[in-house]
Amino acid sequence: MTRDATDHYLIAPDPAAARLTRAVEGFDETGARRTISVVEERPLTIFLNGQEIVTAMTIGDYPEYLALGFLKNQGMLGAGETVKGVDFDEELETVVVRTDGETVYEEKLKKKTRTSGCAVGTVFGDMMEGLEGLSLPNAPVKTSWLYALAAAINRTPSLYLEAGAIHGTVLCREDRPLVYMEDVGRHNAVDKIAGWMLSEGVPGEDKILYTTGRLTSEMVIKCAHMGIPVLASRSGFTAWGVEIARQVGLTLIGRMRGQRFTCLSGEDRLIRDTDPAHVGEEDRKHGRKGAGA
Amino acid sequence: MTRDATDHYLIAPDPAAARLTRAVEGFDETGARRTISVVEERPLTIFLNGQEIVTAMTIGDYPEYLALGFLKNQGMLGAGETVKGVDFDEELETVVVRTDGETVYEEKLKKKTRTSGCAVGTVFGDMMEGLEGLSLPNAPVKTSWLYALAAAINRTPSLYLEAGAIHGTVLCREDRPLVYMEDVGRHNAVDKIAGWMLSEGVPGEDKILYTTGRLTSEMVIKCAHMGIPVLASRSGFTAWGVEIARQVGLTLIGRMRGQRFTCLSGEDRLIRDTDPAHVGEEDRKHGRKGAGA
Repeated sequence: MTRDATDHYLIAPDPAAARLTRAVEGFDETGARRTISVVEERPLTIFLNGQEIVTAMTIGDYPEYLALGFLKNQGMLGAGETVKGVDFDEELETVVVRTDGETVYEEKLKKKTRTSGCAVGTVFGDMMEGLEGLSLPNAPVKTSWLYALAAAINRTPSLYLEAGAIHGTVLCREDRPLVYMEDVGRHNAVDKIAGWMLSEGVPGEDKILYTTGRLTSEMVIKCAHMGIPVLASRSGFTAWGVEIARQVGLTLIGRMRGQRFTCLSGEDRLIRDTDPAHVGEEDRKHGRKGAGA
Repeated sequence: MTRDATDHYLIAPDPAAARLTRAVEGFDETGARRTISVVEERPLTIFLNGQEIVTAMTIGDYPEYLALGFLKNQGMLGAGETVKGVDFDEELETVVVRTDGETVYEEKLKKKTRTSGCAVGTVFGDMMEGLEGLSLPNAPVKTSWLYALAAAINRTPSLYLEAGAIHGTVLCREDRPLVYMEDVGRHNAVDKIAGWMLSEGVPGEDKILYTTGRLTSEMVIKCAHMGIPVLASRSGFTAWGVEIARQVGLTLIGRMRGQRFTCLSGEDRLIRDTDPAHVGEEDRKHGRKGAGA
């Protein structure tokens, strides 16, 4: 990676942070002792005002962004609701998001609790809400941006390169990666970006979201809720993810490896300004092996 | 793959099943039209008696095993509780697990609902219950089994090889893969195996669990609850996963690729009967790229 590439980031991974990895002793295939670097994983319980919502497993950086972004992406924070404060308690492993008055979600939760005894299982229904009628902006995407982003992100020093077993999601604009979040939790990396955007008042309409994870329905829905019209990934698709992307007008690009990619939604917005034959295959050192799941 | 390898399976993937994949039209990097095979993803709502528990995203095969295994692995079905029936309704996308009388979990849920208004967030706490004092059997593991399993599994026709974007988990005994489950949902593949074991009364003590996913705390806890003393993966570790494995006496092997692997718990149980130098590197065609997550 060139120095320039890191300089572009507003937030970049901090693979040297002592809190995020641990040296663990073990043995390799020959029986030789080896010390390897392993990512941390901690529980974080998210509250919305007085209501316990969920316990997420996270590496533990940016708990405030994670909580805010999670609640926003789940549709638990409405557009009219003002966040008064976000309080993280490291010892209790909790983060409390406080709003002015009771949220629509809390009201619904009380009603649901009264009628069926519990609100588990409503989370999914709430995520789908607000998607009908949603139409993302018709943003053009140059293929040169996609190739430049993949190359820059693969070369950025990260917890993935240091310790593996982690997913990354990067908020980008044109050919520049801006905010690169990583996490052990499946969707935490994208929720942390959503929390950052909400805190900083950053709009999604001119952005591209790049992820190392699969393009499942949940990932597509989160991207749509963030107002980002382009979602790109090294990994593959699910049928429902594709269906929702087409419904909301999200450009969906997957299986990005070296010069190859597949576009399953929004092809008409792609500006093919790069000849794939001139893009080098991923060099093996920087090719991600996939974090597994 | 040799014919023999498939013949060993009690349950093998069925990549040709029409319900599990969909042909989707898209474009490749050159702008050429391509039709690719994409895995399905469907919501499935799991009930325990009259109580709605969770909505999982699944490819949709084996919903009964998934529901049973999920409830068992979450500690929602106690040892003394008898399952009377499991009813799947395809149209409603629900599966109901019925027990004799009310379960301990339902009682707890009612209490929790009375005190705090909701039971969201208790799921994690319940999973950790029953781990204290648990000690898995001191089962020896030959490295020749591990190499044979990885080779056989990589060559088994699967949804992964057909469509990608999916995780696999395989229940094995010595060098034989027995039950190979795949799913889009992070932990569904392992839950489906747990459900099969519970239905068939199959013990875990002489088994090895192989997964393509990462060795997180949740994966290690599920394996421990299933009574399986060995967990192996192509992917990496989290620090807490390693900690729990050491606590319950689980042999934990990760980063299995070609001749290489790393053992971070239970090294003293490994019988190193194979010279790694004589194991071929994974041939590229069969090496998984990782499903991402």
